[in-house]
Amino acid sequence: MEFTVNQIAAMLGGTVEGDGQGKITMLAKIQEARPGHIAFLSNPRYENYIYNTGATAVIVSRQFVPRKPIYTTLIRVDDPYISFTTLLEEYHKLVSFQKTGIEEPSYIGSGCTTGKNIYRGAFSYIGNQVMLGDNVKIYPHTYVGDNVVIGNNTILHPNVKIYAGTRIGNNCVIHSGAVIGSDGFGFAPQADGSYKSIPQLGNVIIEDDVVIGANTVIDCATLMGDSTIIRKGVKLDNLIQIAHNVEVGKNTVIAAQTGISGSTKVGENNVIAGQVGIAGHLVIANNTSIGAQSGISKSIKEEGQKILGYPAFDIKDYFRSYTVFKKLPDLSHRLKQLEDYVYGRKNASVAGENLNENTHS
Amino acid sequence: MEFTVNQIAAMLGGTVEGDGQGKITMLAKIQEARPGHIAFLSNPRYENYIYNTGATAVIVSRQFVPRKPIYTTLIRVDDPYISFTTLLEEYHKLVSFQKTGIEEPSYIGSGCTTGKNIYRGAFSYIGNQVMLGDNVKIYPHTYVGDNVVIGNNTILHPNVKIYAGTRIGNNCVIHSGAVIGSDGFGFAPQADGSYKSIPQLGNVIIEDDVVIGANTVIDCATLMGDSTIIRKGVKLDNLIQIAHNVEVGKNTVIAAQTGISGSTKVGENNVIAGQVGIAGHLVIANNTSIGAQSGISKSIKEEGQKILGYPAFDIKDYFRSYTVFKKLPDLSHRLKQLEDYVYGRKNASVAGENLNENTHS
Amino acid sequence: MEFTVNQIAAMLGGTVEGDGQGKITMLAKIQEARPGHIAFLSNPRYENYIYNTGATAVIVSRQFVPRKPIYTTLIRVDDPYISFTTLLEEYHKLVSFQKTGIEEPSYIGSGCTTGKNIYRGAFSYIGNQVMLGDNVKIYPHTYVGDNVVIGNNTILHPNVKIYAGTRIGNNCVIHSGAVIGSDGFGFAPQADGSYKSIPQLGNVIIEDDVVIGANTVIDCATLMGDSTIIRKGVKLDNLIQIAHNVEVGKNTVIAAQTGISGSTKVGENNVIAGQVGIAGHLVIANNTSIGAQSGISKSIKEEGQKILGYPAFDIKDYFRSYTVFKKLPDLSHRLKQLEDYVYGRKNASVAGENLNENTHS
Repeated sequence: MEFTVNQIAAMLGGTVEGDGQGKITMLAKIQEARPGHIAFLSNPRYENYIYNTGATAVIVSRQFVPRKPIYTTLIRVDDPYISFTTLLEEYHKLVSFQKTGIEEPSYIGSGCTTGKNIYRGAFSYIGNQVMLGDNVKIYPHTYVGDNVVIGNNTILHPNVKIYAGTRIGNNCVIHSGAVIGSDGFGFAPQADGSYKSIPQLGNVIIEDDVVIGANTVIDCATLMGDSTIIRKGVKLDNLIQIAHNVEVGKNTVIAAQTGISGSTKVGENNVIAGQVGIAGHLVIANNTSIGAQSGISKSIKEEGQKILGYPAFDIKDYFRSYTVFKKLPDLSHRLKQLEDYVYGRKNASVAGENLNENTHS
Repeated sequence: MEFTVNQIAAMLGGTVEGDGQGKITMLAKIQEARPGHIAFLSNPRYENYIYNTGATAVIVSRQFVPRKPIYTTLIRVDDPYISFTTLLEEYHKLVSFQKTGIEEPSYIGSGCTTGKNIYRGAFSYIGNQVMLGDNVKIYPHTYVGDNVVIGNNTILHPNVKIYAGTRIGNNCVIHSGAVIGSDGFGFAPQADGSYKSIPQLGNVIIEDDVVIGANTVIDCATLMGDSTIIRKGVKLDNLIQIAHNVEVGKNTVIAAQTGISGSTKVGENNVIAGQVGIAGHLVIANNTSIGAQSGISKSIKEEGQKILGYPAFDIKDYFRSYTVFKKLPDLSHRLKQLEDYVYGRKNASVAGENLNENTHS
Repeated sequence: MEFTVNQIAAMLGGTVEGDGQGKITMLAKIQEARPGHIAFLSNPRYENYIYNTGATAVIVSRQFVPRKPIYTTLIRVDDPYISFTTLLEEYHKLVSFQKTGIEEPSYIGSGCTTGKNIYRGAFSYIGNQVMLGDNVKIYPHTYVGDNVVIGNNTILHPNVKIYAGTRIGNNCVIHSGAVIGSDGFGFAPQADGSYKSIPQLGNVIIEDDVVIGANTVIDCATLMGDSTIIRKGVKLDNLIQIAHNVEVGKNTVIAAQTGISGSTKVGENNVIAGQVGIAGHLVIANNTSIGAQSGISKSIKEEGQKILGYPAFDIKDYFRSYTVFKKLPDLSHRLKQLEDYVYGRKNASVAGENLNENTHS
């Protein structure tokens, strides 16, 4: 990208002081900016940097009064931080969506329909009867199986694998190595101790505004007509396992390496930390917060709980129990002493009758 | 696929009532079936659906007597559920094995031998001296290194990576993103605190009827001539780590995100839940059942145990201990009260002699 | 590879007894060696194998005196084990670096510079303005985004994904399926319960001599100019999650399936076992050893600690507490008995005043 200072000021509704023709190619922190960069000054602690910054332009507040000479161009706005954030987002969109056209060799099957402004990277593979919306970006090495539908503005990073029959909404981002629609893990035990695979014939539905992290796996549903469903606005981190027939509710956020077993329904607006394991066939209420590495073995019925542990229970109670756990050797020792004191000195025969001494620590 | 009702009835040994020329393209649940679909009725609770189903045909019991007019074609069989399952399996085979031939561009090295009815997807890569059996399906973006041998009817889904020298049996299914034969994690510590890589020269052997989940990793053995071995009938879920020189015994099933460290031998017919960690150089007996998120730090010698915990022990004992763990603050409080009562009121001087009060909670 | 016995002896500074023209194509254990193989004899327990080995040559000590006739060629050296290890390493280098040249079809963008002796496998993708050092090996299906820099002798195995802007040093090995530079997991909560993605504009820096395991993910830093950094000599196993802005110190080794949350700084020479979870914004001191499956929720300030648990504390203390944990039902029972004995028989009214009997187990 390349913009003039004037163009950026216009975008932000700001006013320029200095050379409006300067060329901007990148955003940077004020302490690291070099020619061609634009930075911002919001926190007064960083003010000194503005007097010798290499930046071609700096976004400042309309109220900013320099205490020394300034050699960079200023763009004055109402809130420099918000303006810079806006630029970051615009920059990110530009970078994300700048790829366009078809690199060769790439593969596309028969009966596909594709929207406007598509990117299909080299070595990308699109099967038969696939529908791609406008601005869909299919990076190199990405595989899209037969009968897949992908909405507008969705980005599949390099080497995403979408199995046949998957449906993906608008404005989704799927990162490298993610696998969507692989077979659920279902096997019927046989009399001889072996297992027979149960055919997995359902699909995966991913609604709008979903982000899926690198190397995360989402299995398809078992039965034809059923779906594993990731609802609108869900954000999944890297290396997550979502098993067959799971449903993850709207705006739920899940951190890396968490696993959800088959047929579990996770509610809306959950916040699930990393390395959590959730057993199968459970229902997790809305607004549940689950601490890292927790194991969830029962449904959570009451909304708004914060839980931790293995199996998980109330997070404050967990920490109270864990505080005592750390002192268990002392506790055990004190109990023994008390027993000796009470039984041994006062009434040894009663202790002998009641307790099996061999099990004492 | 497209079959007539008559063809399907013949396949199932059933008799047709209605239009035997109807075309079937898909299987569906009776409550969701539309024209072109075939469904089944087994559970009487679903009987009402048959009277207004959109299905082109429904599989019913020979004994079924309709209570209302029926507008769909019937196929009468001995057991509708078993017949439908048979159809599901046939359908799955058809879908799995329907791909055939060579899509271009694809790459194959020198000295390879390939069986009948092979599929090599676009952008698939086959190295040198590779042997592929009959009906092997290599999906797009899959990599098969030099000197790999793959048996009959084995399916490698898109983007599987098989390192050089791996051997894979018959009837295996390997899902997207799985890596077979990557270097084991072996490093020799040096005097300066750095590590030197130990060359990993062994391979991986996968026997018949093995299923390997998406993004699962199986490392090669360390020494030339040694192998990491996955025995016949093993089923591995997604995102599993199998380290160098591990052996997983016949018909063992392992759920997602479990990790097995180097040189451990897992017995036959184990059932290992998700997110379990097993340390290196252990032996796990046959028929062991390991609960989710358990940590296994010692060999399991006795067969048929069910264990849980970190480190794991008998699952019932774990839950008994955990029940008390949840009440530890109360237990600790009660012990303190008892100490105060016994020592403080009856014989404070003795308590003072015996106990270090500073360590009390 | 193919060498004569004489060539190998020269490489090892050894002397040949027998046919120096024998052709060697592989290394093997003495008990498994066949013609064309070279083996070694160091441990006297294996001496019997040398009298009927199929090996073309065996490396032995200069002091070795056969007790029976020998039919293989001997190479005498000072230390057979070290000589064999040297051969293993040389062999591994030969195998790793033997691939050279460009297989077609492959893709390379504009403005790239590439060193000597490069390998670019079929279906590999190199973006624009990429710099590759000497002896870089890019295996099939590997993706290297725009503006990436890769040092000398670095190997990217099949299907590695390097996002734009990543910098990788010399002598690194990255295994299949690893993703370097994917977006950090950063989302700003909105008033309606949804989340807005925070653009992730930083990059990843990987220094020299780093090994990265299969399907491991390293996210980029959040801000432009910031980096997620993997220092010199770090070894990462498979399926590891390294979040945005993390720094992993020199020569630290991390086992499989461990996850490190955003902005945490891990010190030098740490040894971190498998399935560990480390929370965000922590600092872990040098020479820390963290046991498998531990959860780290606070910074570790003191160097050289060995810790375990969830949350983790001193490993010996953890095991002492866990020993008591296993006996908690007994402990709880004994406390109840003691209470009954003390309060019930001696002074029931006092117990009644002090304790809520309903909370007893």
